[in-house]
Amino acid sequence: MIKTVEWTGDSVVMIDQRLLPEEEVYRRYDDYRDVAAAIRNMTVRGAPAIGVAAAFGVALGARQYKGEDWNGYEAHMSKVCDELATTRPTAVNLFWAIEQMKAVLAEARQQKLTPWQATELLVERAKQIHASDIEANERLGRYGAELLPAKGIVLTHCNAGALATAGYGTALGVIRAAIAAGKQIQVYADETRPLLQGARLTCWELQKDNIPVTLITDNMSGYFMKQGLIKAVVVGADRIAANGDVANKIGTYMLAVLAQAHSIPFYVAAPTSTCDLSIPSGEHIPIERRANEEVTELAGRRIAPQGVAVANPAFDVTPNEYITAIITEKGVAFAPYIESLKRLLQGEN
Amino acid sequence: MIKTVEWTGDSVVMIDQRLLPEEEVYRRYDDYRDVAAAIRNMTVRGAPAIGVAAAFGVALGARQYKGEDWNGYEAHMSKVCDELATTRPTAVNLFWAIEQMKAVLAEARQQKLTPWQATELLVERAKQIHASDIEANERLGRYGAELLPAKGIVLTHCNAGALATAGYGTALGVIRAAIAAGKQIQVYADETRPLLQGARLTCWELQKDNIPVTLITDNMSGYFMKQGLIKAVVVGADRIAANGDVANKIGTYMLAVLAQAHSIPFYVAAPTSTCDLSIPSGEHIPIERRANEEVTELAGRRIAPQGVAVANPAFDVTPNEYITAIITEKGVAFAPYIESLKRLLQGEN
Repeated sequence: MIKTVEWTGDSVVMIDQRLLPEEEVYRRYDDYRDVAAAIRNMTVRGAPAIGVAAAFGVALGARQYKGEDWNGYEAHMSKVCDELATTRPTAVNLFWAIEQMKAVLAEARQQKLTPWQATELLVERAKQIHASDIEANERLGRYGAELLPAKGIVLTHCNAGALATAGYGTALGVIRAAIAAGKQIQVYADETRPLLQGARLTCWELQKDNIPVTLITDNMSGYFMKQGLIKAVVVGADRIAANGDVANKIGTYMLAVLAQAHSIPFYVAAPTSTCDLSIPSGEHIPIERRANEEVTELAGRRIAPQGVAVANPAFDVTPNEYITAIITEKGVAFAPYIESLKRLLQGEN
Repeated sequence: MIKTVEWTGDSVVMIDQRLLPEEEVYRRYDDYRDVAAAIRNMTVRGAPAIGVAAAFGVALGARQYKGEDWNGYEAHMSKVCDELATTRPTAVNLFWAIEQMKAVLAEARQQKLTPWQATELLVERAKQIHASDIEANERLGRYGAELLPAKGIVLTHCNAGALATAGYGTALGVIRAAIAAGKQIQVYADETRPLLQGARLTCWELQKDNIPVTLITDNMSGYFMKQGLIKAVVVGADRIAANGDVANKIGTYMLAVLAQAHSIPFYVAAPTSTCDLSIPSGEHIPIERRANEEVTELAGRRIAPQGVAVANPAFDVTPNEYITAIITEKGVAFAPYIESLKRLLQGEN
């Protein structure tokens, strides 16, 4: 299995996703600030992977504290968490993971542990978040696999695979599980401009697993839907609101509208850590705007005239009415999501 | 005005659209085979521009004949026309222009002119096709301008501008005419993968005319439609069937479905030379498949893993039910197109 983010005992190692598929480079991080930078510059990306990286970042930050007093420790940890929390705005897994770590910290202080002991608990919790993300993906993969046809082409967008998670993947986890269950699934992968996560990452990791994949540009999916080639669409998510509205990579909304126009089921696969029941609908999800150069340049080469205006929203929101089902590690939610998601998430406790 | 294709008196000069916007290189052609290669390799592209280039190619080919007997001349011209006709399959303007030239040839023979005289007539006809394409665009631009709102953002796809025609443009001609008529139009331009005609060509030519343009990736248009930003979509066409189905650059169909889902008018702008009433519907339009490298490489750099399967249809067909109006130089056609297009085209004679 591809190792997206790993804890080595005293550092975090991450594959540099900006360089794939040309180069397979693993980078070691000893400083939480470098982990924050890696999240910001998309060395690591994908909502669940960002959450795991942030948890390890908090653990690293705790290790970097050399004092013994709780006040200094808490002030330091607050700085650590704040820096990690401001890296990217849309994926809720980032904030979820940091909250998990903060809860460990609060509990440790309440139990009058030393900062050193608290740090050990933080490391343990981060490792748990990592392990349970893989487990969640394997579980949601099995739930999702049942929804896919016995045979046919499934379209996916961006990369919701092993590289977007601690391992196995969400959308690609569903596909992996379906194939493991004997289904004959082929994948069409949208290249996903501007950063080409589909072309660079999804194709790369599916090839590694010998899963048949065909690369298309983002503007081709309607064509293949109309031809009757696409039997289902499966995507990941960066944040799911209480009503089932889903923020995901820009272009997801278009696919959902097209899927509905062609009566093709449209599935969202995500762990419950991607659900944000604190917000009623997708309108409340902050959409990250990224640099113009992502659109106007490729590998340092200009592909548009100088001075042209550019819009670059990194995500969009797909309203719940376009979503056939939301596949989580706790089961599959169907409309009305306001009830089904709450029911699934409460099953947690 | 940008000079896409020009006749210099004894050669054809075309701007190399593959190098824009970085380099503005004009190439001179003395041999019809080089014109055919330029159409094939997309030095010149855009349905009406291809038609004009082909007409000049036929004229060049005629000039290259040094003999004086009609049988040799006809055999030579048949080779010339065949080579030009096999360059690209989808844009009907190519075949239309070659047919126009063949008719001149047949008429010249019937009138017992010499091959040399016939060649002069072919050159004249090619020059007329060039001039009347610009005129048609200016005329359809004025018709289309009336359909655009007094103010707002218009989305376009690929390049249906001066560079896609002898000059002025079809979709961009409508926008130019609307602005000339005092309307406050801004343009959102889809970059149009794989060959980025939107980013490279549409942005470049609109900037030259000081028309406000914002570049977006192909997967963003749904997002901006949902935000209520897009007031109309205007695209060109490569071939329009008798029932009003429209073949155009891949991704056009997706835009049409999305426009309908958001109640945004979707206009097709094209000269009547793009209409092919000989075919009943879009199903009969041959869709060109192009090389995988267009998708797997961007600006000469590999962006997908080696060995990945690729699909690369260059065009798609938008069924007539998604089209609000078809704007031609003979007037605006509305549904049912089977009648309105026939009426417009018959107005020709």
